[in-house]
Amino acid sequence: MKKVLAVNAGSSSFKFQLFEMPSEHVITKGIVERIGLNESIFTITVDGEKKTEVTDIPNHAVAVQMLVERLTNFGIIQSLQEIDAVGHRVVHGGEKFSDSVLITDEILSEIEALSELAPLHNPANIIGIKAFKEVLPHAPAIAVFDTAFHQSMPEQSYLYSLPYEYYRDYGIRKYGFHGTSHKYVSERASELLGRPIEQLRLISCHLGNGASIAAIEGGKSIDTSMGFTPLAGVAMGTRSGNIDPALLPFIMEKTNKTAEEVLDVLNKKSGLLGITEMSSDLRDIEGAAEEGNERAELALQVFASRIHKYIGSYAARMSGVDAIIFTAGIGENSTEVRERVLRGLEFMGVYWDPALNKVRGEEAFLSYPHSPVKVIVIPTNEEVMIARDAVRLAM
Amino acid sequence: MKKVLAVNAGSSSFKFQLFEMPSEHVITKGIVERIGLNESIFTITVDGEKKTEVTDIPNHAVAVQMLVERLTNFGIIQSLQEIDAVGHRVVHGGEKFSDSVLITDEILSEIEALSELAPLHNPANIIGIKAFKEVLPHAPAIAVFDTAFHQSMPEQSYLYSLPYEYYRDYGIRKYGFHGTSHKYVSERASELLGRPIEQLRLISCHLGNGASIAAIEGGKSIDTSMGFTPLAGVAMGTRSGNIDPALLPFIMEKTNKTAEEVLDVLNKKSGLLGITEMSSDLRDIEGAAEEGNERAELALQVFASRIHKYIGSYAARMSGVDAIIFTAGIGENSTEVRERVLRGLEFMGVYWDPALNKVRGEEAFLSYPHSPVKVIVIPTNEEVMIARDAVRLAM
Repeated sequence: MKKVLAVNAGSSSFKFQLFEMPSEHVITKGIVERIGLNESIFTITVDGEKKTEVTDIPNHAVAVQMLVERLTNFGIIQSLQEIDAVGHRVVHGGEKFSDSVLITDEILSEIEALSELAPLHNPANIIGIKAFKEVLPHAPAIAVFDTAFHQSMPEQSYLYSLPYEYYRDYGIRKYGFHGTSHKYVSERASELLGRPIEQLRLISCHLGNGASIAAIEGGKSIDTSMGFTPLAGVAMGTRSGNIDPALLPFIMEKTNKTAEEVLDVLNKKSGLLGITEMSSDLRDIEGAAEEGNERAELALQVFASRIHKYIGSYAARMSGVDAIIFTAGIGENSTEVRERVLRGLEFMGVYWDPALNKVRGEEAFLSYPHSPVKVIVIPTNEEVMIARDAVRLAM
Repeated sequence: MKKVLAVNAGSSSFKFQLFEMPSEHVITKGIVERIGLNESIFTITVDGEKKTEVTDIPNHAVAVQMLVERLTNFGIIQSLQEIDAVGHRVVHGGEKFSDSVLITDEILSEIEALSELAPLHNPANIIGIKAFKEVLPHAPAIAVFDTAFHQSMPEQSYLYSLPYEYYRDYGIRKYGFHGTSHKYVSERASELLGRPIEQLRLISCHLGNGASIAAIEGGKSIDTSMGFTPLAGVAMGTRSGNIDPALLPFIMEKTNKTAEEVLDVLNKKSGLLGITEMSSDLRDIEGAAEEGNERAELALQVFASRIHKYIGSYAARMSGVDAIIFTAGIGENSTEVRERVLRGLEFMGVYWDPALNKVRGEEAFLSYPHSPVKVIVIPTNEEVMIARDAVRLAM
């Protein structure tokens, strides 16, 4: 019996889950926020109860030290030696990493070199990796990349129709993200369908504050809606998704902004927030739409119809589809969005039951038993994928 | 019996066709190139034979004067009074024009005001309008807009998920182009199918050096692949189509280019040309791919697969499709591209005959008679649409 920590580190926070393996039982989980700021917040779940401390945590290493102390103080572990491995979520693995990997100094340098492709995320992930290594030097660390699952995309999917030298010289291509989630739900779908994944054509809709759709054929991602960055694809909470690329210079001129400033608008002030001018939170928007707010209704239409169109597009990409999967916050919980996304797909064999679609946050089939295409809600679990890979690679 | 000139003016050229209406017989047609440059070229077809003159033509008005003289000299018309109307293609009609319109001074000002949205095209179209008015002051002029047919798109299709004020204040939305062509082929499809257009769901693929796909429901465009500009959508001869918008700032930084310079690369050095680093001409690329050139093969895959995916997407958008239409240079002539686009759409009811797909440049069904979804090649004819609208609006 092994204990594995799954970690998702940001620049001023990290989330953790401690797994008992191979049972995959979650022993505890929590989050440290506002690291490096005043009044940092440390939250950990002990026996199903959340315990929160507010104190100044100057850096990630101190936060990890605090985590280890709490784990022992609360009797969750007896000694830090019990932590057999630490698995880290890393956003960008570039073309280098098509699988998770045991982190060595060389690997760490390679992850650092990829920071250019994910300037906001990889450096934060690296801070997390180093902090855990400092406090838990005995525990092997592994990296699980958001991009790795999509490395199976063929060239015709990942290549932009830009000057080829941009790909060769600057690595400009579609990478795709949420890979760990798409992989988890596709494997789980195969189990729920009772069919080998090699025989399945799946469309996975990861709909959270960030959202991406993936076409998964025979267990391999062959196309996905996010691109070089997580900005591309469908409309999201605050992100625009695809727009006419000619709009960037036009907006720059009209608003007297730099390219970077416009990019910031596309990432942080667009999407549902941009359309509604009110909220990026789908729950607020559903509520407002129900009360007759036209802009909220419009935002829902835009959000759902672009996902709906991706489903058609990826069904065409795979010459048909066996199952459509909904996951992540919105995908698992929004009856409204799922209904709008699924409505009108009967022509391609999608028949679903509005009563079943009331489900929230648990595994469930939405399709009728006779539907040629199945529709399944599957809560995602990136953490367990990290823990599994840690066991596979480090033990 | 009336005579109508259909004109498509660029900044240094114009094409013309003289129609006899209502028979729609093309009396003559031609092109004037290199206007304002030395060695301008005037080409006109007389009795099926092309006649070319090379001479210096300083401006559009002189070119029009020359056209009228040749028409009388060759005995095509007896006097310029015989020209009953002139119909002009105008690229951008903004949200103002959802139909063709008789050009008055006020309308001309409005077309001028829309130049901001089409800085390369509308000013050239206006030069053409003014030149014909100068030489043929008696003939009413009408404007036929590339964008008008797409004005029927609902808000959920045309609105980008950007800050709403960008739409309100700057007119940033999807306009769509090739509208006259999409309208022509959809009406013709209705005739060929022997079904009222109100009952049809059509996907029209206008594949030329520029390419766009339209979803046409009940005779109205409800979605299209081009956007605020003709850069968006599928990959084209030299245009990138949709890319991750975050790539613009990245390319600017990497190549030390301004936003406008990168935009120029996306418009003129991307697409098929960018991928192959060889040619933007599909015929060259098909030839090279056949000879084993891998990059050419890749460009064909990218080009076709993005159209293929749009078909799936628009089928989903309309909850199914009754017919898929191919038009324009590539759509009418490329057996290879059509095959790649159509392959694997059986799941949505598209069954087609490779033997029928050998057709080039003429109206033909590619689908088997039993295919639930019909596939039709329809050579486009924007000029006849201009002539028809001239008759409708000016006589």
